[in-house]
Amino acid sequence: MLNRIAIAGCGNVGTALLEILYDKRDELEIKYNFRYEVTLIHDLMKGSIADQNGLDIGQVLKELRTNNSFANMEQAQGDFSALLELSKATMLAEATPTNMETGEPGLGHIMEALSRGISVTTTNKGPLAVAGEMLTAAANDRGAQFRYEGVVMSGTPLIHLLQQGIAGATVTEFEGILNGTTNFVLSRMDEGATYADAIDEAKRLGYAEANPTADVEGWDAAVKVAILARIIFGKNLPVAEVERRGITEITKEKIAEAGRRGNKIKPIAGIETTGGILRGYVAPKEIPLDHPLASVSGAVNAVRITTDNLGDITLIGPGAGRRETGQALLVDLIAMGTKE
Amino acid sequence: MLNRIAIAGCGNVGTALLEILYDKRDELEIKYNFRYEVTLIHDLMKGSIADQNGLDIGQVLKELRTNNSFANMEQAQGDFSALLELSKATMLAEATPTNMETGEPGLGHIMEALSRGISVTTTNKGPLAVAGEMLTAAANDRGAQFRYEGVVMSGTPLIHLLQQGIAGATVTEFEGILNGTTNFVLSRMDEGATYADAIDEAKRLGYAEANPTADVEGWDAAVKVAILARIIFGKNLPVAEVERRGITEITKEKIAEAGRRGNKIKPIAGIETTGGILRGYVAPKEIPLDHPLASVSGAVNAVRITTDNLGDITLIGPGAGRRETGQALLVDLIAMGTKE
Repeated sequence: MLNRIAIAGCGNVGTALLEILYDKRDELEIKYNFRYEVTLIHDLMKGSIADQNGLDIGQVLKELRTNNSFANMEQAQGDFSALLELSKATMLAEATPTNMETGEPGLGHIMEALSRGISVTTTNKGPLAVAGEMLTAAANDRGAQFRYEGVVMSGTPLIHLLQQGIAGATVTEFEGILNGTTNFVLSRMDEGATYADAIDEAKRLGYAEANPTADVEGWDAAVKVAILARIIFGKNLPVAEVERRGITEITKEKIAEAGRRGNKIKPIAGIETTGGILRGYVAPKEIPLDHPLASVSGAVNAVRITTDNLGDITLIGPGAGRRETGQALLVDLIAMGTKE
Repeated sequence: MLNRIAIAGCGNVGTALLEILYDKRDELEIKYNFRYEVTLIHDLMKGSIADQNGLDIGQVLKELRTNNSFANMEQAQGDFSALLELSKATMLAEATPTNMETGEPGLGHIMEALSRGISVTTTNKGPLAVAGEMLTAAANDRGAQFRYEGVVMSGTPLIHLLQQGIAGATVTEFEGILNGTTNFVLSRMDEGATYADAIDEAKRLGYAEANPTADVEGWDAAVKVAILARIIFGKNLPVAEVERRGITEITKEKIAEAGRRGNKIKPIAGIETTGGILRGYVAPKEIPLDHPLASVSGAVNAVRITTDNLGDITLIGPGAGRRETGQALLVDLIAMGTKE
């Protein structure tokens, strides 16, 4: 079967996906029996291009490199619904920027695709935070798949592990380092930097945004906790109900004190269950050196999952990066394209 | 669809699978749409019982607890082929004891099932080591699935991660602690025990066999390296070609010396690739304390996988245990039973 891929959002992540698809066309067919054409690329800034027989990805990448736009290419006309129709897409990779209040424009793209029975993968936390339950229901209604490996830990396959890898085991608890920025900042402070210097360095390296509030006050991790609550426990845990303490209260001195006790302070996000009640939290926590999350430094992410059948499982890997997040889209596209 | 499960080998692992299936019948149906009956249990010592409408698992577990045998139950007659026919099994969970020379009796069971188009999961390294390529080809020929999550790291989902979780990424290198016994022994020596004392303790705790040669001389890990070479690189790497150094050369003094250099000695198994040539090895290796495998102690297993799209991924979890290995069978049964 030929998979016709639509891509919404062609920034860093969408472009990385195109690069990987282009480089690995033969390998994907041989190893996974995954044959594809990209039939639509839609980007609010760069324009929309479509060809139901498949765009020339080499040409598209050249345009992106030289003009960072599709302005010199023939534009496809119409709203997103019309573009999907035109492209005959069988799957959508959604990688538009995140808006945590409205979920748009990703939410509209995803609903439009799912309502047509087109399977979707997204790296965008906004639509999941705003309407995760509705989107899952819409996918089930239409027999489409809705996947989102990239919303937590970029391409490190946490969601695959939870949904497929440990299927049959019951998770009783999880804790993790889900925000790379705050882990980088605390790691640098552990090496002697002040909070202010560490934040500045994170900004210079592109780990932190100009306004780092969402990271340092724990909002980013809290959203991920809410998303994981639904995946792991099948329950709705509103972001507002996730207990949240930022890392702004942490000083070099507190880190040194913890060090004298043989401990590290790490930005931990987690869920505990007591009698079926979920407690989600994000907080800087003091953990012993032999804890599996203690040695996870820099911008790396990690989770420890406690289960009935397997005891503790720990997964460590990148939590961000354009190619890493492009890989997250790819792994879902392969899963959707080789399902039957 | 109703999945009819045959179980070959009803020792610790087969019994653990039965316990989990019994405890989680409703949960498996609700969460994974996995409906099942166990229609055959075949054990060389305990006997064979079959019912194509489904055995009473509660009754079976009671017999195992009280008599550790099916002698008081009506015996199903015939060879394994006849038993499969009788049971109308749609999938086989193979958990007979490992024979590294012949692969039997597992090899015969698996071939019989695959040749009938019955999908198979096994925890038995023997058939894979003796005839992995043939079994994979037989499965493909008949449109059956052949899975073996449990042969490496018990139920820690390494094989799911490699085959599904990072699909699309290319592994360039891996290294891991794949043998819990030797990791336990070196961990105890790191705490001050002599080699002889650590081995004795491992035997007492059931980690090491009376004759620990297969573990301490690296044979067990070398077989796992060969199995992973096929999964990761699609290549045949004979066990005899895996470079192998045991832990018998390691002394308390060498461990202390490494410690003074800020390092740990760990039983590492790995594969490197240079220009398409695989080099598999098993050896006690000195690694720095901030290496992700350095803090993996006791009977725990771990792997670090280096990839193109994701950089390094580390997975840590149990490497043995009856319930953990039963979980490995279960996760494969769920994957096979909900495929379409």
